[in-house]
Amino acid sequence: MAYETISFTIENNIALVKLNRPEKANALNAVAWKELKSIFEELDENAEVRVIVLSGAGKHFCSGIDISMLAEVTRSEETCDTRKREKLRKKILELQASVTAIEQCSKPVIAAIKGGCIGAGVDIICACDMRYATQDAFFTVKEIDMGMVADLGTLQRLPKLIPDGFAREMAFTGREVFGAEAERIGLINKCYETVDNLFNSVTEIAASIASKSPVSIRGTKHILNHSRDHSVADGLQYMATWNAAMLLSEDLNESFKSKSEKRLSDFRN
Amino acid sequence: MAYETISFTIENNIALVKLNRPEKANALNAVAWKELKSIFEELDENAEVRVIVLSGAGKHFCSGIDISMLAEVTRSEETCDTRKREKLRKKILELQASVTAIEQCSKPVIAAIKGGCIGAGVDIICACDMRYATQDAFFTVKEIDMGMVADLGTLQRLPKLIPDGFAREMAFTGREVFGAEAERIGLINKCYETVDNLFNSVTEIAASIASKSPVSIRGTKHILNHSRDHSVADGLQYMATWNAAMLLSEDLNESFKSKSEKRLSDFRN
Amino acid sequence: MAYETISFTIENNIALVKLNRPEKANALNAVAWKELKSIFEELDENAEVRVIVLSGAGKHFCSGIDISMLAEVTRSEETCDTRKREKLRKKILELQASVTAIEQCSKPVIAAIKGGCIGAGVDIICACDMRYATQDAFFTVKEIDMGMVADLGTLQRLPKLIPDGFAREMAFTGREVFGAEAERIGLINKCYETVDNLFNSVTEIAASIASKSPVSIRGTKHILNHSRDHSVADGLQYMATWNAAMLLSEDLNESFKSKSEKRLSDFRN
Amino acid sequence: MAYETISFTIENNIALVKLNRPEKANALNAVAWKELKSIFEELDENAEVRVIVLSGAGKHFCSGIDISMLAEVTRSEETCDTRKREKLRKKILELQASVTAIEQCSKPVIAAIKGGCIGAGVDIICACDMRYATQDAFFTVKEIDMGMVADLGTLQRLPKLIPDGFAREMAFTGREVFGAEAERIGLINKCYETVDNLFNSVTEIAASIASKSPVSIRGTKHILNHSRDHSVADGLQYMATWNAAMLLSEDLNESFKSKSEKRLSDFRN
Amino acid sequence: MAYETISFTIENNIALVKLNRPEKANALNAVAWKELKSIFEELDENAEVRVIVLSGAGKHFCSGIDISMLAEVTRSEETCDTRKREKLRKKILELQASVTAIEQCSKPVIAAIKGGCIGAGVDIICACDMRYATQDAFFTVKEIDMGMVADLGTLQRLPKLIPDGFAREMAFTGREVFGAEAERIGLINKCYETVDNLFNSVTEIAASIASKSPVSIRGTKHILNHSRDHSVADGLQYMATWNAAMLLSEDLNESFKSKSEKRLSDFRN
Amino acid sequence: MAYETISFTIENNIALVKLNRPEKANALNAVAWKELKSIFEELDENAEVRVIVLSGAGKHFCSGIDISMLAEVTRSEETCDTRKREKLRKKILELQASVTAIEQCSKPVIAAIKGGCIGAGVDIICACDMRYATQDAFFTVKEIDMGMVADLGTLQRLPKLIPDGFAREMAFTGREVFGAEAERIGLINKCYETVDNLFNSVTEIAASIASKSPVSIRGTKHILNHSRDHSVADGLQYMATWNAAMLLSEDLNESFKSKSEKRLSDFRN
Repeated sequence: MAYETISFTIENNIALVKLNRPEKANALNAVAWKELKSIFEELDENAEVRVIVLSGAGKHFCSGIDISMLAEVTRSEETCDTRKREKLRKKILELQASVTAIEQCSKPVIAAIKGGCIGAGVDIICACDMRYATQDAFFTVKEIDMGMVADLGTLQRLPKLIPDGFAREMAFTGREVFGAEAERIGLINKCYETVDNLFNSVTEIAASIASKSPVSIRGTKHILNHSRDHSVADGLQYMATWNAAMLLSEDLNESFKSKSEKRLSDFRN
Repeated sequence: MAYETISFTIENNIALVKLNRPEKANALNAVAWKELKSIFEELDENAEVRVIVLSGAGKHFCSGIDISMLAEVTRSEETCDTRKREKLRKKILELQASVTAIEQCSKPVIAAIKGGCIGAGVDIICACDMRYATQDAFFTVKEIDMGMVADLGTLQRLPKLIPDGFAREMAFTGREVFGAEAERIGLINKCYETVDNLFNSVTEIAASIASKSPVSIRGTKHILNHSRDHSVADGLQYMATWNAAMLLSEDLNESFKSKSEKRLSDFRN
Repeated sequence: MAYETISFTIENNIALVKLNRPEKANALNAVAWKELKSIFEELDENAEVRVIVLSGAGKHFCSGIDISMLAEVTRSEETCDTRKREKLRKKILELQASVTAIEQCSKPVIAAIKGGCIGAGVDIICACDMRYATQDAFFTVKEIDMGMVADLGTLQRLPKLIPDGFAREMAFTGREVFGAEAERIGLINKCYETVDNLFNSVTEIAASIASKSPVSIRGTKHILNHSRDHSVADGLQYMATWNAAMLLSEDLNESFKSKSEKRLSDFRN
Repeated sequence: MAYETISFTIENNIALVKLNRPEKANALNAVAWKELKSIFEELDENAEVRVIVLSGAGKHFCSGIDISMLAEVTRSEETCDTRKREKLRKKILELQASVTAIEQCSKPVIAAIKGGCIGAGVDIICACDMRYATQDAFFTVKEIDMGMVADLGTLQRLPKLIPDGFAREMAFTGREVFGAEAERIGLINKCYETVDNLFNSVTEIAASIASKSPVSIRGTKHILNHSRDHSVADGLQYMATWNAAMLLSEDLNESFKSKSEKRLSDFRN
Repeated sequence: MAYETISFTIENNIALVKLNRPEKANALNAVAWKELKSIFEELDENAEVRVIVLSGAGKHFCSGIDISMLAEVTRSEETCDTRKREKLRKKILELQASVTAIEQCSKPVIAAIKGGCIGAGVDIICACDMRYATQDAFFTVKEIDMGMVADLGTLQRLPKLIPDGFAREMAFTGREVFGAEAERIGLINKCYETVDNLFNSVTEIAASIASKSPVSIRGTKHILNHSRDHSVADGLQYMATWNAAMLLSEDLNESFKSKSEKRLSDFRN
Repeated sequence: MAYETISFTIENNIALVKLNRPEKANALNAVAWKELKSIFEELDENAEVRVIVLSGAGKHFCSGIDISMLAEVTRSEETCDTRKREKLRKKILELQASVTAIEQCSKPVIAAIKGGCIGAGVDIICACDMRYATQDAFFTVKEIDMGMVADLGTLQRLPKLIPDGFAREMAFTGREVFGAEAERIGLINKCYETVDNLFNSVTEIAASIASKSPVSIRGTKHILNHSRDHSVADGLQYMATWNAAMLLSEDLNESFKSKSEKRLSDFRN
């Protein structure tokens, strides 16, 4: 499949995905929203891919929803107020689904952020598994300055990633949180001085993940997603049933075998 | 409405609320519990108010439940043990409701804490949206030293605000956590050196919130409360339905208009 | 009861429990899993015990599941694939129950960690109430390197203890997190320079807990466990019902009495 | 308190409450909605009352929301669409609260229905504990014929009372379900030939309930409400905690004593 | 779109959908599963359609999953046991999604059943809104006789439609439940003597639904689905938010207007 | 293991379990509560057993908790009120666990009831999978007449078995519901004229279940238990994971093979 607003390469089982409208600071227009969903569904199916790194082309990670797109969402020819709102609700659900595709992709998605991560950009990185950024990267829940409630996932996912008090401060004030503070509050796992540092380190982490048993990585992500939304008791039961199905893999054998043979494990995709 | 244990002023859409029994270190007696509920219900209804700052008059934020009040709660003429406990349960629910009024108030509530924040004081700040404090402020789950399980919300809300391990240490040992540590564990968003620093900064944050679209601020708080207690999937669905109703506001238009006219937004209450 | 893989002493109402197969770095074999469950059930029943400190004999806290044990779990004579998996599921549930016994023990359990805390070791400390460690202690979700999904509680509990992004990094990469970083991300409450510092401090914390009202400590743990898996509204209701039953204790009286008599409280077990 | 749209008497610990605007077929206007809430809060507090029978004065049980009321709900001077909808949402929540007051009243509420039970009438009876009716009573989810989704509780409670397929048929078609069919599908516990039969029988049931231990009746209703919205495991835990507080009542003793003395139990209110 | 295994017509806003492989008793092969999903997604989007009637061509409603399909699901070239099971799990989720498409279709779906409704046929009708059948129709949870646990929704939905004891009897014994008994236990709303009676009556019900406000019908279905899986408190809050968005429709006006003009309502699709 | 209050036989893969203190109408004393748990744990482990029939020796099914037992539960030497209630709570949880052992037994449990099924007897049958009775069997939630809230499961499980209105009538009035009415409200699947009819029919049903694939029967029970306490979406996901583990059984093959060979299936235990 060809993409207009996204570029990607796959090498060493790592997919490098870039939001790619640098001239618009990677603002997300209607095409971009569709492609965001498509690319993560495609990579989910592509067995060669074991881990995904998501970044932005150019200076910024993402400047949020394209303003023309927002206008389109709110405009309507529909004369019945309720029918108009049914359509609006459906449209919001559609955009949410593009973001959720990241979470539902069976492989870990690592966000590597430099420059601005604004509005919908925050929705997107919150659906990623881990986040790393440069010190001059900044994060802002910009929706509050557009006179709206952020509705594509930030308010649902951010408070499950960072302390609630910070999530609320970010959501109410829309202020910019830079790399170092983002690290301190746990929004990103690590803050780097330069873009090179960032990408070297993220590539290393991605390579580490790509070297592990792919079925175990997929299973671990699936279970972590499940855990977030269930009680511990429920989660444990689900876990036991999951591993009743998934424990006895070729990869488990290969792990034991490679260890006894004192060599690196070599897993199939 | 006149208050005996609480004082407040409203200016620039910001309500400054003070627990006001400084001679008792703002201990909460029966009147105070009732008034706590009333003031937040009143401010909820007052359209002029867009954000609330809660602090304590005098040296301390709050020294907890008034000891005479606790005696009253536990004393009873009732001869039937079960009827006595029905009454006790009802009384606990009533006091909890006073605290929960802060959470259910539709506008953000910022706690500005200096001095002691003790026992029920912790219950109260945990129901606020954000917390800021001086370095000599201290927090203690004092109930454990009174031979009781803290029952007004601390044990329900604190572990959703800070790492579970710290919440348990605070709850089991009742030890005092001072400003700097409170910042490190995420209990407060920021620790300030002086009371002046604290109030200047909190006023600035409050002013920032007061300058935003009031309907969006209210919606954001409502959704953040909802998110805490629901799965992400449930939260997203609720969000889409919410914005189907609430997105197309006067404030959304004003935001766009003011931006194109390069002026500050001017929102109605 | 006599234990083969565990040692323990009880003094001053504090139980010091040690995983005790130092020659195997406290790897957990079949006997150890059974004894882990038994010891926490026994201490739960022992009224003299008010708080428990869990550590490891020798250099390491715990090197995880004994490799022979894992082999046994995955091996089977059973010819029907489904019957084999029923048995596997049951075995996983059994091992999970050993870990959960720590959480369900009515007294606080403090993990004091030095050296390696590996694989199942992480499952175990996540079920403890609080964690403290030396700077050279290290934590690793080793299962990913064994070609399996960690299935004894780490993936369910860890993301409720530390920021989600770190939990995922640990789970996907299996990298070692040392004491200082563990403190920064909230996995441990405090990192100490030496083993002596660690045990002195942990003993002090344990003694503080042991000095409190035992019924209030038990109630607090029970409620904190409940809160984690319920909404705030549900939690508050449960809390009110709990204290309708449990508030009016001898310990509440003793607390008031000792305060008015200006002496330390003296609680019954 | 004086009521305009409701009449009631209390005799033998039974409160007989009547919707009392027979000239309007007990349509619920603004006053009636407020009084519905007040009366159930008042009876909740009145220790003399042990059980409540709710019926309608005149020919019908209730013809639903007063049409003028509905007009008022939907009309608004508010120029901002979102602020208008905030108000609308609040109004709906308010009306729902009037219905929920029945459910939250600590004493059992028995609906005795003759004639029409229409629209909001169905919302009301679904919040009662039990329902009994004459054969010519009829039930209709009339909202669908007013071009709206029934929003005061019918769609939440009805499918938890009767088989889902019937609840949907009633909600989609608005067709009238008469007494005999209502009995067959479980909407009412019993259908009676005449109004006299109905009231004689309901009075008997009420008298039976009024003769039981009042604390046990209140506890049973509370627990039944809790059970509906929780898993069995959660419910059992809550139950055990409840009875830890409430089992050892004067009424338990009186029950045993009266039995051994071969006389009727005589309980305090 | 053209369908191979399904036929349908749309008339008077009613879509009549038929499973259409009568020569195989409407057994569902791979194509049929795909088409089942497609048709309900298509009808969901088709504004002309207001209600759907689902039946089977020929003698039976549906004889279940095509045996060749089942063989295909369970066969695999995959050598790694875990990768095979990942695929199997995905396939089950896919088939479940075909059934769930009925539930997620925004318009009511009425099942009209004659002859056998077997295995996957039961999964399908349980996802419909209402069920009606002839007296010689029969229902059987046939999976138990194929040595498997029914995995496409029957065990999740059936016990929420009929008393739990019957659901278990059907699931454990696989016995045939005929029309009259199905009516008695609430599995179908009504049992008819002849196929003509059945279709006349179902068409009448469908016509009644098609005559109502389409936005209200869609909203009602959406809310009923939501209610099933949430507590009453949660459901009421969602309801209020929903109607804040959806109450003020053209259809509400038309309903009032048509009533005052004493004519039938005339709603837009 | 030898039982004092319970008798049982195993034949043709069916375990016939009898409450066996006929001289006390099978009242449950301390021993009986322990044995109830033991027997179901034992039969759970006994591979020969595929289905269990539970009945009562003598004239009645079960007359409830032994009155001496209740006295023991409520009596206590403990002087601290809270410590007494901790013990009481633990005792209630213990008795609940005896009832829940029936639900958690992996094989279907069929209750065959004649005579009285009183108090704790109702708790027990509600934890069974299906219930069948004679016409002179009667069911009564007797706890209300003992001045207590039924706390061993009836109030949690009964309203999930029969229409809520009936559950409440039974719980509030304690009235006797006889076989025919029990059938009408769905409490029992079928009412029989004589004890012989009952046992012939129940034996037939048990034999039918015993003839099915044992792993499928166990899986079906497990999934039905799971479904009751989860949303449909959650349930479907769990189901898919379950069958990823459990679908490809020897029994699935045997089912296909036996069908193609036109003979009865012959499953291993």
